Amino acid sequence: MSARVGTIHGVGLGPGAADLLSVRADRLVRGASHVAYFRKAGRPGQARRIVEGMLRPDAIELAMEYPVTTEIPLSDPRYNACLAAFYADCSTRLTALAQTGADVVVLCEGDPFFYGSFMHLHARLSGVVPVAVVPGITGMAGAWTATDVPITWGDDVLTVAMATLPEDELVRRIRDTDALVVMKIGRNLAKLRRAVATAGRAEAAWLVEHAAMPGQKVTRLAEADSVTPYFSILLIHGQGRRP
Amino acid sequence: MSARVGTIHGVGLGPGAADLLSVRADRLVRGASHVAYFRKAGRPGQARRIVEGMLRPDAIELAMEYPVTTEIPLSDPRYNACLAAFYADCSTRLTALAQTGADVVVLCEGDPFFYGSFMHLHARLSGVVPVAVVPGITGMAGAWTATDVPITWGDDVLTVAMATLPEDELVRRIRDTDALVVMKIGRNLAKLRRAVATAGRAEAAWLVEHAAMPGQKVTRLAEADSVTPYFSILLIHGQGRRP
Repeated sequence: MSARVGTIHGVGLGPGAADLLSVRADRLVRGASHVAYFRKAGRPGQARRIVEGMLRPDAIELAMEYPVTTEIPLSDPRYNACLAAFYADCSTRLTALAQTGADVVVLCEGDPFFYGSFMHLHARLSGVVPVAVVPGITGMAGAWTATDVPITWGDDVLTVAMATLPEDELVRRIRDTDALVVMKIGRNLAKLRRAVATAGRAEAAWLVEHAAMPGQKVTRLAEADSVTPYFSILLIHGQGRRP
Repeated sequence: MSARVGTIHGVGLGPGAADLLSVRADRLVRGASHVAYFRKAGRPGQARRIVEGMLRPDAIELAMEYPVTTEIPLSDPRYNACLAAFYADCSTRLTALAQTGADVVVLCEGDPFFYGSFMHLHARLSGVVPVAVVPGITGMAGAWTATDVPITWGDDVLTVAMATLPEDELVRRIRDTDALVVMKIGRNLAKLRRAVATAGRAEAAWLVEHAAMPGQKVTRLAEADSVTPYFSILLIHGQGRRP
């Protein structure tokens, strides 16, 4: 007796607005019998929030809660070991579900293959059970649309960097690009602000919070508050060829 | 008598598949009374092709045909002047339509604010008539999804560069990044191939043609044909932290 094995769908939800899901993602989410998503313990989770009101009433939800790692430094091997065990456990649970024949939709903010947690499941599930990925509108596209200014023109070089990088590396990257996107800001805002100033781009830098969501806010970096959500994005727009 | 002025919508269509339009874009395209798009003279146009079968039967189409500039070098001031006159003319036509009260949907491949032609209209129309932009899934997201490998992990730096850059600049950019996207390849493939080899990344580079479309093709750059569509994309995947 060979039972049908279900598919794990990594579905990009886009930057935050429900109508910025792709038509393919929208159909998968609304039709899903099983829906999985990452969230911090005790939080509703941003991915789950985006699809509020869209799920089938009988959909079975699987919340994958990140282990608390805030007290382990990123450089400590225990940090990676703790996350590795978590992703392995999630993958085991999803594999078991697929082997009962269930298709599972894993909700992914933005695009699943662009700095997302789903990639850590994808690496473990590929070749074990069927996996399919639906690309999404990135958070950064939501952010530059919010500024109402194009991000790149002509031959502009765009650099995407994480605010978790060392300060001197950030300065170097900011100096050596036409257009810039910085993500994972959160507690790195003070460092990022210094790096942008050192690179001489303070007047050109914009901070976008809650892009494509009700609380959307676009501020000059110079005028931004010191506390900013983890999912805020810094932008410097390119100034390339524009006939 | 103050007539209602219509809105010009710059609508991102995503990488190529009709079901990768956002729900918002899908609604706008299907409901549009007026649809405008860029194309090369005598070609159907990629943006128009994506929405084939989706338009209202009574939709009025406005094809904006690029002037033939192939015989003017990019560095010649006449090149920019020729394009500037073209974009000014398109903007005048769209403004006139909006002033009759018509909403116009401008079809944009990928995302309108990411290396797109719509930006040249946006710069001319903003403040003149109402303009609204719908972000889209970028062509590069379609490309990395086609490879079935995530593009960026952890603290990876992503560089997006155009193959129109000088060869030594391409080499420098390829050497100095974790993940890479190169667009506008077309006639620059030979130069790009040399630059990737000089930077020592030939084995890591992938060429994606017709991402998210029927002819989708993923090839190692080393094995790619010498002629490749203008809208092919080169990728080098990041190798960052993966617990």
